[in-house]
Amino acid sequence: MFNINNNILNVDSPPIDYFNDLLSKNSNSNYNPISFGHGIPRFTPIDYFDFNNNPIFEPSSYKYSDIRGHEKLRQFISNKLNLKLNVKTDLDNFIITSGANSALFKALFLKLEQGDEVIVPSPVYFNHIMAIQMIGAITVEVDSIEKNGFQLNIPEIINQINDKTKVIILNSPNNPTGAIYDIYDIKHLSEICLKNNITIILDYTYEDYIYGTDYNPLQDFKSLENLIIVGSFSKTFGITGLRIGYICADPYLIDNLCKIQDTISICAPVISQNILLELIQSESKAINKNKLSAEFSRNKLIELIEIIPQLEWITTNGAFYAFIKLPKEINSWEFTRDLIVNKSVLVLPGTIFGETWKSYIRIAYGAVDSDEIDEGINRIKNYLEETT
Amino acid sequence: MFNINNNILNVDSPPIDYFNDLLSKNSNSNYNPISFGHGIPRFTPIDYFDFNNNPIFEPSSYKYSDIRGHEKLRQFISNKLNLKLNVKTDLDNFIITSGANSALFKALFLKLEQGDEVIVPSPVYFNHIMAIQMIGAITVEVDSIEKNGFQLNIPEIINQINDKTKVIILNSPNNPTGAIYDIYDIKHLSEICLKNNITIILDYTYEDYIYGTDYNPLQDFKSLENLIIVGSFSKTFGITGLRIGYICADPYLIDNLCKIQDTISICAPVISQNILLELIQSESKAINKNKLSAEFSRNKLIELIEIIPQLEWITTNGAFYAFIKLPKEINSWEFTRDLIVNKSVLVLPGTIFGETWKSYIRIAYGAVDSDEIDEGINRIKNYLEETT
Repeated sequence: MFNINNNILNVDSPPIDYFNDLLSKNSNSNYNPISFGHGIPRFTPIDYFDFNNNPIFEPSSYKYSDIRGHEKLRQFISNKLNLKLNVKTDLDNFIITSGANSALFKALFLKLEQGDEVIVPSPVYFNHIMAIQMIGAITVEVDSIEKNGFQLNIPEIINQINDKTKVIILNSPNNPTGAIYDIYDIKHLSEICLKNNITIILDYTYEDYIYGTDYNPLQDFKSLENLIIVGSFSKTFGITGLRIGYICADPYLIDNLCKIQDTISICAPVISQNILLELIQSESKAINKNKLSAEFSRNKLIELIEIIPQLEWITTNGAFYAFIKLPKEINSWEFTRDLIVNKSVLVLPGTIFGETWKSYIRIAYGAVDSDEIDEGINRIKNYLEETT
Repeated sequence: MFNINNNILNVDSPPIDYFNDLLSKNSNSNYNPISFGHGIPRFTPIDYFDFNNNPIFEPSSYKYSDIRGHEKLRQFISNKLNLKLNVKTDLDNFIITSGANSALFKALFLKLEQGDEVIVPSPVYFNHIMAIQMIGAITVEVDSIEKNGFQLNIPEIINQINDKTKVIILNSPNNPTGAIYDIYDIKHLSEICLKNNITIILDYTYEDYIYGTDYNPLQDFKSLENLIIVGSFSKTFGITGLRIGYICADPYLIDNLCKIQDTISICAPVISQNILLELIQSESKAINKNKLSAEFSRNKLIELIEIIPQLEWITTNGAFYAFIKLPKEINSWEFTRDLIVNKSVLVLPGTIFGETWKSYIRIAYGAVDSDEIDEGINRIKNYLEETT
């Protein structure tokens, strides 16, 4: 009865609401719910910012902005990226979008024709796969190398390149593994992409979450000829609900992206742009508070996971995710479901990040406090002891 | 050098920023600028609402919501539509989106395969055309009948239906003509669509702007089998900058739309949802204030246009647009440009609403006050006298 585009019909339903729902309706009421599910940082602006100017009382918050977004925001992100790039960006290299997902979709929608191929290192953030499939392009997943901390498998990526390859998506720091990809690997890939007219789309959402090392995945790009950067302000400022991100690309691509932006969004939410214009005054405060909390949780997690014999985590240095191996006889989807029902703890199953990862779980540790880490991991430990 | 999807490449660039830019940079500095350009209402919440609860201080504003949006908002719009529909909608019939453009794009993206045909009455809101073209479907424009106040040309629409026709977009009240389509025409089309498995997408953005008559384009739909409603809260509440709208459809379609929503947007901006949750308490205040102002401007415009011999306006009863015929030797694009440069008045050229409308202009009268109407139309009058 209802005609639907086949590409959409064949895409799996988004998994997070399903598990959130399970947690709120079917969890064990003897335990308070603990969520390692959603990838959000711990502190919102309410925790680190005083709104002296309150954008809710500014008329401009309720009116359209320029399609590309507020100039001062574009200048802000341009200045930030210019510290890392070898090519100087300016206002005309940017569009402010309704979040990084919106940015990634629009970049892929701009580049891809039906049947084009996109190489994605796996495990992979599921919305990347969903976007590629909806557009009618083909996902080529290349498993990352777990023993090296989920680093890129460069020979296999190169092996998969053919005439139909248009885009390689690199998400570094990575969701769901937390890996930060080796800069020499990125340099190598960048050179190959330049030769083959392939675009690297760098999903740079977790830019500000890197632990114990300096890391700049942009350092070896010489131009924006083979690079589109999509990013978010959500994780840096703790503002996932404002829905605000950006695309950085060559001005010719930005001009064409304006067509897409106008059609899908008109502009990013202006109330959110105006709030962000206030928050950028306190960027370092926002990062310090959120990153410090994530780093603390990460260190705690390393200690706690290490002493659970059924869990194996090759520690990584970015984002706020631990991608953890269960005993291989365990199906992670069933484990996730049963853990919610029995212990009121939400993790995400590895399968949603790629078929290979059936016996893995993702623990998002950005939003939890010390007690929740202790209590949550302890319940996982007990559950494993009770059932394996 | 840069590969771009051909469908995107072939779409025209969005016109509004071009003219806004011209107004702010190249207008005649002897005159203060007057804009009849953007389709926005006059009053924002600052003019009609006291924020006792200020969502900027609510932590939830900074976190993700459910993909479908806040339940209370879905309930609100469901209750509102249930007063007009013959079928009872409920929470599972709705997604809250980042504006009506986002809603329309997502609905088309769900339905259309490459090469499918979409019938659109012309003149047509340009973003509708852009969306269809980007997706790789084919736009079939059917000119509306000017002498009847831009009503639908039903015989010609029926004549254009074939096996590839998947969607008919009806935008009523209409942008850019202000027409409210005859309910018997809509009923007739609805029956034909049901027989031919064609979906009517009703763009209901201007729902609350109808003058001097009762009008309900939904009254004869018996089910949501052949109907998707896309709407906006922007015009009703004066909140275009919040970017918030909705899709109403059969739950099966909504489930599949959730995949698209998650991939492109994750959710509508939550700060905006929270603000709107406050504003819905004052819906009638918002509508009264904005509609009264638009109605006053409309009446004034009718008087003023009538006495300008070079302008012809077949008055319509909805939205806040006047689609006005110039002498046919005038090219409306050049007229628009020169009017900005010489008189600092912004209108939009008819050409951007369809090739047929070369000698028309659109005047958006929602946001202007009485003096601006007087002064703006007077400048147009003078300019026509000086040049024709």
